[in-house]
Amino acid sequence: MKNVDMDFEDVVKQRRSVRSYDTERQVSDEQLKKLFELVKLSPSSYNLQPWEFIVVKDVENKRRLKDCAQGQKHVEECSAAVIVIADTNPMSHADDIFEDRLKRGYYTAEQKERNLNKVRELAKKSFEERRVWAVRSTSLACMTLMLAAKDMGLSTCPMEGFDAGCVKKEFKIPDGYEIVMLITLGYEKNRPLPRLKRYGFDDFVHFEKYEKK
Amino acid sequence: MKNVDMDFEDVVKQRRSVRSYDTERQVSDEQLKKLFELVKLSPSSYNLQPWEFIVVKDVENKRRLKDCAQGQKHVEECSAAVIVIADTNPMSHADDIFEDRLKRGYYTAEQKERNLNKVRELAKKSFEERRVWAVRSTSLACMTLMLAAKDMGLSTCPMEGFDAGCVKKEFKIPDGYEIVMLITLGYEKNRPLPRLKRYGFDDFVHFEKYEKK
Repeated sequence: MKNVDMDFEDVVKQRRSVRSYDTERQVSDEQLKKLFELVKLSPSSYNLQPWEFIVVKDVENKRRLKDCAQGQKHVEECSAAVIVIADTNPMSHADDIFEDRLKRGYYTAEQKERNLNKVRELAKKSFEERRVWAVRSTSLACMTLMLAAKDMGLSTCPMEGFDAGCVKKEFKIPDGYEIVMLITLGYEKNRPLPRLKRYGFDDFVHFEKYEKK
Repeated sequence: MKNVDMDFEDVVKQRRSVRSYDTERQVSDEQLKKLFELVKLSPSSYNLQPWEFIVVKDVENKRRLKDCAQGQKHVEECSAAVIVIADTNPMSHADDIFEDRLKRGYYTAEQKERNLNKVRELAKKSFEERRVWAVRSTSLACMTLMLAAKDMGLSTCPMEGFDAGCVKKEFKIPDGYEIVMLITLGYEKNRPLPRLKRYGFDDFVHFEKYEKK
């Protein structure tokens, strides 16, 4: 099978944002499980893992999601459209995860309490601050998802053009969750056009301090 | 050389957040160039690539950065501490990138104008909205950086525990940039403790709609 178990660099170089999907080929539950077993290894703030994913495969549901997403047809044509959401409450997993840190010897009891207090402070911050916090860690997981999919011979496209209120309503997403992005997933039909321009090392890397480029 | 040119899955599985660095081994400029040549291939909103990176290798500068980062000693002990910043003005690259889209056949002139107008609208949104927008794309690049480093035999640690005002002042970062995270980079001294708990597929994947877990 082509494009499976690839060299790391090849995965990064061959991943493209794909908007054209083969509607005859579906992603299996086994593939999804394998995919998310890699996604879960992404790092996150205090290891709190604010990410959750709603996998939409039903044709009617994909159509509803497309209607929330400016009618972009790859949302319907992909095998699975993934709604990536982030829990903006840092305390949701904190007790569980900090107990795990203690148990595994990462923290003494004193360190556990001190860091748990930091998370409690974070939880009191404005929604805007918690939103940035949740998007940051969850986007890391999104990149792992897109690369891991490529490694499995699948293509993806990250999307931010959607009506968040519509998606929340249609897919019963509670308040307190931020919709970070949508990611379409499936087998590509046509290779995309040649890659768009990327800025290079000299354009975006500074040394020692910021200098106007 | 161990740990170089690895299989994709091995990179994801072996990447860890490393806080203990071999102070005798430095990351070369060639390694940094190779690293960022992979980072630049990350996707971003409209391909606008809001990410920039300040690579701090000078001992005195790393110490100043450590002082802005709760005194965490791996900021000083790593070979290079990377300050990841995001340009919150979506228009900064828009004309250039949209011209590239037109030139490569991604857009007709009409599509170019229509989408450029969407970016102009985005640029008028509140700082909070533009901040989330910039953090989202830039965090994707951060994950590519951490995985690509691992593929090259290097270790990293993403950090959000720092005083943003202090970092901005010390490293001359202009207003309009968000500091997304710090990433330490270098050769690890000690392997970290066994991996912390990760939630699994059944914990964070929903099907068709959100359901309370």
